[in-house]
Amino acid sequence: MARIAVKFGGTSLADVDHIRAVARRVKRLVDAGDQVAVIVSAMAGTTDQLVDWVKDFSPSPESCESDVVVSAGEQVTAGLMALALQAEGLRARSWLGWQLPVRTDGVHGAARIEDIDPQQIAKNMASGEIPVLAGFQGTDANNRLTTLGRGGTDTSAVAFAAALKADRCDIYTDVDGIFTSDPRIVPKARKIDKITYEEMLEMASLGAKVLQTRSVEVAMKHGVRLQVLSSFNDSPGTFVVDEGDIVEKEIVSGIAYSRDEAKITLQRIADRPGVAAGLFGPLADANINVDMIVQNSSRNGETTDLTFTVARSQLAQALTVLEGAKAAIGHEQIFSDDNVAKVSVIGVGMRSHAGVAQRMFSTLAEKGINIQVISTSEIKVSVLIAEEYVELALRSLHTAYGLDAD
Amino acid sequence: MARIAVKFGGTSLADVDHIRAVARRVKRLVDAGDQVAVIVSAMAGTTDQLVDWVKDFSPSPESCESDVVVSAGEQVTAGLMALALQAEGLRARSWLGWQLPVRTDGVHGAARIEDIDPQQIAKNMASGEIPVLAGFQGTDANNRLTTLGRGGTDTSAVAFAAALKADRCDIYTDVDGIFTSDPRIVPKARKIDKITYEEMLEMASLGAKVLQTRSVEVAMKHGVRLQVLSSFNDSPGTFVVDEGDIVEKEIVSGIAYSRDEAKITLQRIADRPGVAAGLFGPLADANINVDMIVQNSSRNGETTDLTFTVARSQLAQALTVLEGAKAAIGHEQIFSDDNVAKVSVIGVGMRSHAGVAQRMFSTLAEKGINIQVISTSEIKVSVLIAEEYVELALRSLHTAYGLDAD
Repeated sequence: MARIAVKFGGTSLADVDHIRAVARRVKRLVDAGDQVAVIVSAMAGTTDQLVDWVKDFSPSPESCESDVVVSAGEQVTAGLMALALQAEGLRARSWLGWQLPVRTDGVHGAARIEDIDPQQIAKNMASGEIPVLAGFQGTDANNRLTTLGRGGTDTSAVAFAAALKADRCDIYTDVDGIFTSDPRIVPKARKIDKITYEEMLEMASLGAKVLQTRSVEVAMKHGVRLQVLSSFNDSPGTFVVDEGDIVEKEIVSGIAYSRDEAKITLQRIADRPGVAAGLFGPLADANINVDMIVQNSSRNGETTDLTFTVARSQLAQALTVLEGAKAAIGHEQIFSDDNVAKVSVIGVGMRSHAGVAQRMFSTLAEKGINIQVISTSEIKVSVLIAEEYVELALRSLHTAYGLDAD
Repeated sequence: MARIAVKFGGTSLADVDHIRAVARRVKRLVDAGDQVAVIVSAMAGTTDQLVDWVKDFSPSPESCESDVVVSAGEQVTAGLMALALQAEGLRARSWLGWQLPVRTDGVHGAARIEDIDPQQIAKNMASGEIPVLAGFQGTDANNRLTTLGRGGTDTSAVAFAAALKADRCDIYTDVDGIFTSDPRIVPKARKIDKITYEEMLEMASLGAKVLQTRSVEVAMKHGVRLQVLSSFNDSPGTFVVDEGDIVEKEIVSGIAYSRDEAKITLQRIADRPGVAAGLFGPLADANINVDMIVQNSSRNGETTDLTFTVARSQLAQALTVLEGAKAAIGHEQIFSDDNVAKVSVIGVGMRSHAGVAQRMFSTLAEKGINIQVISTSEIKVSVLIAEEYVELALRSLHTAYGLDAD
């Protein structure tokens, strides 16, 4: 008998028929002898509607009250799922964040779980009751509702799995698992059987948006074995596990990409200490995330060029901030380009293999794709290219690294 | 400076524009120097949708989990209303039932408020913050969510008004107040300026569905001055107050009706002790409410006829129950008719005036309307008539009692 935390996302709970199908799937797990805790998102579309309403009143949509509004979606599905399980003859009850409680910090709209008291649900599970936990929500120290940010139910599920010492956390979604690349662009993409937390983190934050990044961090921290699988069929999915659990490590396990990129180049800034701080400080203050950063070595020992990327949606705001800080930075000119995309090659195996980056560069060169910025970490190589080349780059790299399906 | 509890129903909160309009109305009250607590229903249609979903899983829709689902509607409007008030420059925060808490008994779907702890909101109101209270919801002793039944936000509002020792509880709705009769049927119906709790109770339970009956009971018990008024204009509404607050008591203050009626007649039941108990016991056990009851005096000293009314929706179930109890009741035949309606003349003044019932009977006789059942209380006379005569009866009685507008 295994204890499993199973999470269902919005597309798996889109209407009462979908909810009934999920309840039957849970029943099959229970009939097979597993002890199951169910974690639910809101119905597909619900959170968007609630967020839209909030935006009608509040330009900065993340607040105490916004969390009161948007957390209602998970409350509805938690109650409905408990009813659906009862209709299948199972004992079930819903749990809202405040009822356990799921204690979080007070950062509304992007709260972090600090503590979950699992005692009551563990006891009820031992007696055969299935807990249905409303994901995405918690309460802060003042007993106000909080939410964990978009995709937060993934993180709720992993945190519940950790608190319940579950053997596994299954994330049911509308795809069959994690793929070697985006199957809509790369028809020969294959489902990955096993991937490490580290690779998954790179994949998720680079645009393979299957799991909330934070959920993978929590899983890694607590050693929760994750499985990403489809709620629409019975195929096994992708396991996200510790590196030690993978015997045959792939040199490259996937090719990820992100179109949500914009490039900013500051020309002829002074090449002296403190300039980078004067530049990135104001951006950080404005909550603008800077991703890739490249500084050319100074040609004349006096001025240098600096290029970095931000999310495309934050480009206009970033330019305004830089304009305001011009005196401190002292750049001559600013260029920006939002017609760019990032492509990344990811794999834990590259730590012990040379030539991975070189193959990427030569493959892109063969196709005539110009590399604008390069950034590397231990397990990934990312390049910024013109957006129009994304599809070609993904397919070429997928073939070059031997990832194509037969 | 008055302290006012203001309640807005679903049609007043139908969408973001309506919610914004309500926020502006609250701002006008605040600007005028009043201390205001806002109590909100769910958006129009939301509760129906949630109840429909619940019914897809559960034949008996009132349960712990059903309350989890349906109470989400008020959570959404409470958060949105707080945001809307903030957008008007006011300090506001939402309060959910469990946050105070609003403690109720454990009767899911029809809970009664046992206690409200007003300390926190009273303190915050004193500092200028506007509490926005989610109506309809509470928690029971096990910390499970409960709801107060259809229209329950009226009762929440009155209970909050009592707990906060408010000077007044304003119930904003989509009508201008309580009318002497249904204006859709009686064009000459007038808005009533003041009405007693007792009259309002008779009006509400007889089909003038503006206020939840229970809310009037709670108002009467705690001496909360109620005002029913429109959220779509600025006219004063109808005050529902203690009899002592009304100087000129009307003999008849209104003519109410209900079409949700069905009549059952049992012929030739034994005229001996215990028969009525044997009859109404099983109906009560099946949660069927019996309203009017008439037993003819026995003609031969052995058998008698008995007629009573039930809600039309419960007729089929009532007949099944009676069929099952036939041995105990010993009736010869059952007749039923769901083509009936109840018309009632209501007024506290009739306590001290003779001839009120007689005028009703003669007015109906003049129009050729046959009276099937009569039932009276201190402040009302009700008759059951064929449904097709409802409009004629209402208009004739409205004129006969001098209620017509000029």
